[in-house]
Amino acid sequence: MKFQLPRGMRDLEPEDFELLERIRSNFLEVTKIFGFKLMEPSPIELLSTLEAKSGPTISDEIYYFKDKAGRELGLRFDLTVGLTRFVASRRDLQLPIKLCSFSSMWRYDEPQYGRYRWFYQWDAEIFGSKSIEADAEIIELTNMIFDKLGLKNCIIEIGNRKVVEEYVRREMKTNDERLILDALRALDKVKKKTIQQIIDEYANKGINESIMNKIIEFANLRGKPDDIINSLREQGIQNLDDLIRLTESLDTRGMKNVLLSMGIVRGLDYYDGIVFEVFDEKNIDIGALAGGGRFDSLPAVFDRPDLAATGVAGGVERIAIALSKIGKVKSEELSLIYVAYANKDFIKPAIRLASELRKNGIRVEYDLSGKNLKKQMEVASSLNAKYVLILAPREYSQKKIVAKDMINGTETQIGIDEIASFLKANV
Amino acid sequence: MKFQLPRGMRDLEPEDFELLERIRSNFLEVTKIFGFKLMEPSPIELLSTLEAKSGPTISDEIYYFKDKAGRELGLRFDLTVGLTRFVASRRDLQLPIKLCSFSSMWRYDEPQYGRYRWFYQWDAEIFGSKSIEADAEIIELTNMIFDKLGLKNCIIEIGNRKVVEEYVRREMKTNDERLILDALRALDKVKKKTIQQIIDEYANKGINESIMNKIIEFANLRGKPDDIINSLREQGIQNLDDLIRLTESLDTRGMKNVLLSMGIVRGLDYYDGIVFEVFDEKNIDIGALAGGGRFDSLPAVFDRPDLAATGVAGGVERIAIALSKIGKVKSEELSLIYVAYANKDFIKPAIRLASELRKNGIRVEYDLSGKNLKKQMEVASSLNAKYVLILAPREYSQKKIVAKDMINGTETQIGIDEIASFLKANV
Repeated sequence: MKFQLPRGMRDLEPEDFELLERIRSNFLEVTKIFGFKLMEPSPIELLSTLEAKSGPTISDEIYYFKDKAGRELGLRFDLTVGLTRFVASRRDLQLPIKLCSFSSMWRYDEPQYGRYRWFYQWDAEIFGSKSIEADAEIIELTNMIFDKLGLKNCIIEIGNRKVVEEYVRREMKTNDERLILDALRALDKVKKKTIQQIIDEYANKGINESIMNKIIEFANLRGKPDDIINSLREQGIQNLDDLIRLTESLDTRGMKNVLLSMGIVRGLDYYDGIVFEVFDEKNIDIGALAGGGRFDSLPAVFDRPDLAATGVAGGVERIAIALSKIGKVKSEELSLIYVAYANKDFIKPAIRLASELRKNGIRVEYDLSGKNLKKQMEVASSLNAKYVLILAPREYSQKKIVAKDMINGTETQIGIDEIASFLKANV
Repeated sequence: MKFQLPRGMRDLEPEDFELLERIRSNFLEVTKIFGFKLMEPSPIELLSTLEAKSGPTISDEIYYFKDKAGRELGLRFDLTVGLTRFVASRRDLQLPIKLCSFSSMWRYDEPQYGRYRWFYQWDAEIFGSKSIEADAEIIELTNMIFDKLGLKNCIIEIGNRKVVEEYVRREMKTNDERLILDALRALDKVKKKTIQQIIDEYANKGINESIMNKIIEFANLRGKPDDIINSLREQGIQNLDDLIRLTESLDTRGMKNVLLSMGIVRGLDYYDGIVFEVFDEKNIDIGALAGGGRFDSLPAVFDRPDLAATGVAGGVERIAIALSKIGKVKSEELSLIYVAYANKDFIKPAIRLASELRKNGIRVEYDLSGKNLKKQMEVASSLNAKYVLILAPREYSQKKIVAKDMINGTETQIGIDEIASFLKANV
């Protein structure tokens, strides 16, 4: 296995890519309607840029190396850092600006079944708007992406880190920011671990069991927006304005599939306000299909504290699984026409015909390797050709070819000049 | 400049990406008609895979590094190696197989104006066919790619390394393969250097001036297929079959823009038969827009001497320059509709209207930051909106809005329920 792939790497084979391409073109269509501009940030960054927000521990999780001039570089691990670095460095841009990207990235995780060290994500961000309407627009965009893909059972669970922080700060009676961040991290694990595991883990970090229990109970607040807002109000939460205005705006936008959930805090260190995740209600076990939120503090790291930011990112693999569960994996393909020849004297006319048809935008295959007619018919059948056009001596001398319908087996003789119009009518 | 990009890197900004996307979707459309399957080989390979054909000197020209487990890895420098490694490793594939890719890659060249260390290429290969018709199909595909892009002045210059080798071998009266390869490399430089430079360079390597002069003269044979074939025949060249059959096949395919040129040998070490390059006749100075040929010896390196291969690769930058010279840079965009509100009471109806229109596939913008109406109109104008829909108290009370045509300045009142159909008829 001298020429195997490096550990955690893979080829995206035609079947994988067909699905990726469908998710990509759907993403491009919807982002265009919402006025996002497609771009791609550099795949290689200075290590210092990648460390800027997450600190030097990020290098444990990424590919990094020195180039020949001794510069410390890293492969991008998401698209958000690059897009933010780009906007932050360009003071000439008119704000707010909406940018999106559909590109691949690398993480040096331990590879697992179905998880690789190289993968694609899609990403859409609005920079330069503090308005809650920008968050609402990101969520509406996300919703339309899933809707147009045919995933009609998606629910969007929305939280607000500020609300959870307010509660945690109050209950823990501390201003120790490290402890508060620890508690938020614990909440992000509620779906992945048992409550006892979390309590044990955080007891060691100095958060006692009864407080952790209360926090977990708070994180389990999940339901219709009005109910949760009432419940939060009853618990004396002050920071309710953003959630109220956001859910009103989503209602105005006709979105009914919205839940508030105090357990949504998101793993990454970026987020500092509204956060959300998308789940397929029929396939909760797949996990979140996309997630995002407000990350006003990331641009500050790139010397732009003035620059507000909110966005969404999603992968491809989980969406592919969700699509496969509803049988929406195959995209509509151009029908295939196979041009066959009865003997080698007809190779040239066959090539000419194939070339003509392709110029008319018709997908055509023919034999490249000198197979006999029977073998050609077998190949045509294995490729699911809709028609086989056969060039044979008798018919060709009358300027006709035989069109065999591969679905019902019927054969029709067609004048050579009428083939393109025949196919346009029948394919 | 703490957060600058690494040397030779760049962001592909929205304008760059719009053009890239046009070249990409054109490539996808044409390859589909020809039955190529889109895929993407791994971006990271074992260094030994990348060195397999080109030898250890390739590491001077690429990004390579050790991962945390000490494995020697490299970033791909083209798509051909990865696609070939993939096909070679998969003995289950039905042959011949047509694969294509549109992806980015990295080379550790010295950055120059307009040249970066990260760039995109498109690539299409047929594996498993020794037939000259496979070469013809690659060339026909390439031609349609440029034709559909609107580059109507492309010429395809075709050579055959076997023919040049036959001539060089005969004239040099040697079987020293290194010397013969040196002479072929010299030919690849004819367009980039003066004849005297080449003669001087190769004199040092042991090829004398009079022989080099003859070889360069041979490389200058360039013209219509019939003329060049006659001339080669007169010079006693034996290996003429492939060029004769290829040019006949291209003629059958209706291609008139074909020249034979003995100066086309291609720089890379892969090629060993038919080779070709595409030039824009009106912009020869840009250099080749694409190139390719037969590379049967590359699969052999991956333990598959049975696997024939022929293909084409092209970049994006030079095509972008050629398109810009004929003014074909802007793609057709969805027209923009801007929804404006007279005062803050109308933000909610404005959002509802924008949301409705977007659900109908209409590209809509509106203000996210609370601007007054005058400012909103300015933004709409700067975004080249086709219509501004204004929500104002008097009209809205009559369930109407004002549609301002931004091209001729006329204003029309429209019933709220008729807006979508009005826009579909007028946009």
